[in-house]
Order: sequence, then structure tokens, then C-alpha cells
Amino acid sequence: MADWLDVATTPDGVGDPGRVHTEGRRTRIAVETARESVAELLGTDSSRVVFTSSATEAVNAAVFSAAAARPGAPLVSAAVEHSSVRETCRRAGPTLELAVDVSGRVDLDQLAQWLSEEQPALVNCQFANHEVGTLQPVAEVVSLCRQANVPVHCDAAAAAGHLPLSFTDLGVDLMSVSSHKLGGPPGVGALIVRRGLRLVPLLVGGSEERARRAGAENVPGIIGFGAACEALLAIAGDESRLAREAGAAMEHTRAATSLATTVDGVEVAGDAAHRVPHIVCVSVGGVKGEAVLLSLDRSGVAVHSGSACSSEVLEPSPVLAAMGVDPDSSLRVSVGWSTTDADISAFADAFPAAVSKLRALASPA
Amino acid sequence: MADWLDVATTPDGVGDPGRVHTEGRRTRIAVETARESVAELLGTDSSRVVFTSSATEAVNAAVFSAAAARPGAPLVSAAVEHSSVRETCRRAGPTLELAVDVSGRVDLDQLAQWLSEEQPALVNCQFANHEVGTLQPVAEVVSLCRQANVPVHCDAAAAAGHLPLSFTDLGVDLMSVSSHKLGGPPGVGALIVRRGLRLVPLLVGGSEERARRAGAENVPGIIGFGAACEALLAIAGDESRLAREAGAAMEHTRAATSLATTVDGVEVAGDAAHRVPHIVCVSVGGVKGEAVLLSLDRSGVAVHSGSACSSEVLEPSPVLAAMGVDPDSSLRVSVGWSTTDADISAFADAFPAAVSKLRALASPA
Repeated sequence: MADWLDVATTPDGVGDPGRVHTEGRRTRIAVETARESVAELLGTDSSRVVFTSSATEAVNAAVFSAAAARPGAPLVSAAVEHSSVRETCRRAGPTLELAVDVSGRVDLDQLAQWLSEEQPALVNCQFANHEVGTLQPVAEVVSLCRQANVPVHCDAAAAAGHLPLSFTDLGVDLMSVSSHKLGGPPGVGALIVRRGLRLVPLLVGGSEERARRAGAENVPGIIGFGAACEALLAIAGDESRLAREAGAAMEHTRAATSLATTVDGVEVAGDAAHRVPHIVCVSVGGVKGEAVLLSLDRSGVAVHSGSACSSEVLEPSPVLAAMGVDPDSSLRVSVGWSTTDADISAFADAFPAAVSKLRALASPA
Repeated sequence: MADWLDVATTPDGVGDPGRVHTEGRRTRIAVETARESVAELLGTDSSRVVFTSSATEAVNAAVFSAAAARPGAPLVSAAVEHSSVRETCRRAGPTLELAVDVSGRVDLDQLAQWLSEEQPALVNCQFANHEVGTLQPVAEVVSLCRQANVPVHCDAAAAAGHLPLSFTDLGVDLMSVSSHKLGGPPGVGALIVRRGLRLVPLLVGGSEERARRAGAENVPGIIGFGAACEALLAIAGDESRLAREAGAAMEHTRAATSLATTVDGVEVAGDAAHRVPHIVCVSVGGVKGEAVLLSLDRSGVAVHSGSACSSEVLEPSPVLAAMGVDPDSSLRVSVGWSTTDADISAFADAFPAAVSKLRALASPA
């Protein structure tokens, strides 16, 4: 009898979680179990978790809601924030752009001064930079903003699942994360909303997600997101394994950069020490990052050039430009749970050859 | 070497389609193939298809974009439109609410009068109603709006895949559809945008979907959406099979309603003839729809009460209220591709007993 209803036109076993009949209830339980796993990994209560279709949607919703609460007040973010933060702020109100140092860390003195002069609608501070991995001083930003009674939104997409991270301990008001950045499927993310903060929904219509986000839930995506968080919780619960995994990622990115920086004119961009373990960025003097990428790809090694999360266009990265690094000549290198020493060796073999060849092509004299 | 990069933290085989390396290219091909299947089913060109996370998001984006193009101009919709259309219009500007007749069909005379008096930013007209199945006079709406130079958005979520439907022939400017309503996975939908119409993106950040919708694509969802459209195209390409399948759905809903309306005080709500084949709504005098639903569920038959696509709350349906039907006493019955005659018999057995029992409980005298 599974054939009555819309349920009949959805894949086997995927009912609509908003329905009161049996199939709907079974799906609701699966979604709520996933919500608890996501909440536990992020150090919060499941009632605080609003599922979205991506971290980008979560960021759009966070900024939109904060701007709606204080119309016309400025929105603060640094040029090293993800494009979704920068673009949404630009659309939602007047903006103030925080300066960063050469490693990409935001300027706290400037923030303190602005907070003493105006009352922004929101301060955005990423947990870690998505292109160079640099950790931001979120605790200090929260402390300054609390005194000024200004809410803080933290884009934690580049860090969640790769570092211990507690929404409650962090004390931010809003936090955005992405499933696929921590090992889950793409097409799902979450916005974490502090208790007592009313979220103005970005998507309106039905009352899904306790009337905080309309639209049929991505049930398979949400279940996959929850499973990825469960897997990460199992690692986190095993301290020796956690140390080993995080250590391995840090070791691999360190090894890759040491090998890369033996090549003339190649330098680490960002903070080589205070960063997420799995991301590092190198600038390659005199060569286009995209050319290195394509050359490495032919050797079976995938890396990034350009803005890491922009799609289809490879524009010069505003993150690197804000740090004073040549955005055209940079490559992001990141590692996953299953990266091996052999992968690093393959990179080490391919990288110097690729750079030499491209430099020779550029100056045939 | 699949372990370099973010690709390493996504499920096997799911790369980021925005990347230029090999895995990204492979994913891009899969997404573009799905886009072509969706476009073909909906009678349009693939360049017109913007993937979203749901029909709700597509609707929000359509209304937002139209309102941004003519700020302050009224947004027209009927009370029988999906909540996403009504709520987004309410948020985006002043609204004008079109009257409907007892079968839920919009009042064209009223629309013509409004178009002669004002220049709305948008007229919304669903292809078919999501609760009672009634087909709307979209061609007539488009003809009136063309003369007045007013764009039309059509929410086709309840009809796409269940009826022949061509975006090009329809001549609307914007059209929203949902994957799970036509047999694909949940968590994905599409907004179709007429050539020459500039879409102001609702979600901003990266340049995904040719800068029309930011956020990492739901690659598995999109591929599933495309596969569902391919399956429907195979049916549509086989005329005898199409006639059989559509005929069977219409036959099943007709049989269910004939059986149901043999019970005293049970009537069809909506247009019994001019409707999508798979949806029909019955009003059950003197009994709460939700009670019938729960009772049928215990017999293994799933139906809907309340607003079909609202989640978690079972509010009285504004669609039925606008048609003058008691919203508390109505049930939506819909069938899928795999519904059998035996399912209809099971409903026929369970329904009269459920209604009699509930009526006896309501008036124990």
C-alpha cells in the first residue's frame, strides 16, 4: 500500500517527513536522528539546527535575517570571507570591510573602533579561511561584539568536522556549515541559530524546519549529513584516533608544502601554523595557478586554482588579493581522510616538473 | 589519486562540477546531461534551466526577481496558489488576490480588469492546483498578460511529469517545478527562465548555475531528477504507453472518487474533469479529514488532510477555503505510477468503514 499518495512518486522509502501517516513518521525519525548527530558534532542542541541546501544558503539566511532585524545598519565582514558572505552583505545593507594581515587574519583593533562608533546589524567572522586555512580569532570577535550588543555570524564551513568546534562554547549567534565539506553528500548544509534569536526565514512557504526554512527537505542528503557527523563523532570519541587523523592531515599538508617550497619562488600563503590541518595554499611566482592545476591534473593530481568555491569562472581570488598575495599564481592544496603518503609523493614528483616546464614556456629565451 | 582536494571528502565519484580538474569535468557532464533531460521533458532549452533545492526555492527566486525588476508594483496571485507563492508575494511587495470559482479556477475577468488599471510586477498562475488537481487557464492568463506587458510565473510542480507540458508553448516567463513530485529524489527542483529575462539571483555567493543561483550543486539529486525525467520521456515517446499510464491514473482516481462518493455527504472538491490525472480531493461532511487519514493509515492506506504541502502543522487549507469548501473535512487522494486496482479496492474497503465509525463517534446518540 505504499502506492497511495506522493510517496508513490518518491524513491522507495523516502516519504515526506511533514506527513502524519506511517511513512511520514518513519522519515521524520530519520531526519531528527540526523539533526541530533549534526548538533552533537557542532556542540549544540538539535532544536538549534536548521537544515538548508548548502552553507551558501545558510549564510544568505543568516545575513538576511540579521539585516531584517536592524534595517539600514551596517554589515561587517572582511574581504577574506567566502563570496556568499560578502555578496549577501552587499545586497542586504551598507557594508563595512574589515582589514586583514598578511596571513589573512582580521584586524581586531579596527573592529573595536567600529563597534565604538556604530551599531552594526551583524559582524561576520569565519572560523577558518576556505582558501588558505588560517584560523580567525572568533573568540575575541565574540567578546568585542557581546560588549557592543552586536550579533556574530560564523561561517564554519571550512573548519567543521576538521577541528573540535562547539557552537555553544564559541558563543556566536549564527553559524553556517556544509555537509560536503565534512564528508557528507553535497546539496545540504545547516544554519545553527542561538536560542532566543528569532530567525526571519529566507525561503517562505510551508512550515518545514519549524517554520524557519520552507521547502521539501532533502531527506537523503540530510540522512547522509547525519551519517558523516556520526562517523566524525566516532573519531572524536576515540582520542588516539582523533590525534592520529588530525595529525596525519597536518603532516600531509606540511609535507606537501615543504616539498613545494623547495622550488624557487614558491611560498606558503596564509598562516602555516595556525590553520586547519587539511588546507594549505602556495603561491607560485611567475606561473598562472590554473596552468599548474591543469598540468598536475594530467599527472593525476587534483588541486585548486582561483577562488576555491567559485564555480565555472576562475576569477582572481579576492581572499589572496586582500592578503597582498598574487591571486593568479596561487594554488590551494587540501587533503582528505584517505590521503596517503604515496599521494604526497606523487604531488612531490609532479609539482617541480610542472612548474619548471611552465616557466620554460613562459620565457623561452 | 582521488584523494587530493575536497573531492576526497565527498562521496565516491561526486566531484565539484565547478572545478576544472578531471573529476570536476566528469561531474559537470553528468549535471549537464541531467539538465538536458529536464529541459526536454519541460519543452525548453537546457540553458533556461536553473537547478534549485526545491520548487519552493524556485518560486521564492521567481517572485523575488520579478519584484526586484519593478519595485513597489503589485504581485498578483490567487488564494489557491501554493503557500510558497502566496507567502513570497506577501513579503516581496503589495499583493492583489485573484478570486476563484467553486472548482478553484482563477477569475479571468478580474485579472483583465486589474491589468487595465495597474501594471503588476508579476502574475502567478499555477498549472494545476496541488490539492484538488484543477487545471488553470494558463494560456488565457498569458495572453492577457502579454498584452499588458506583465510577466507570468507558473508553478507547475503539481502537473509536470503527469501531463504533457511545454514551457515554450505555454509562453510563460518563469516556471517552477519539483523533482520529487515527478518521481525524482527530494531536495531538488528547477526554475525555468525565459530567454532574454534577467534573473536576479535569490541566493548569492559563487557563480554556480551560470551566476543565477549560488551554492554547491546537489549533484546526486540533480542526476536523480534527470533520470526521472528520462524515464518520463521514455513513456511520453511511446504513445500507447503514455495513453495507458495517464489513463490508468485518471481511472484510479475516478474509481476512488466514485467509490468514496457513494458514502452519504462525500463530494468531490475541485473540477472532477479538468484536472491532473493523479490528484483528486473529496470533502467528507461531518468528519475531520485528519481523523479519516489516521483511520485509513491504520488500514494501510495513506492519504492527506490539510494543506498538502505544509509540514508539521495541519492548518485548514486556504485553497479549499477560497473555493468555499470546508477545509477541515477534506482529504486529498493521489495515485502514483505503481498504484494497482488492488490499492483502489483496499481504499474502497477501508474508506466507508472509517467514515461510518468516525461519524458514530461524533454523534453517539
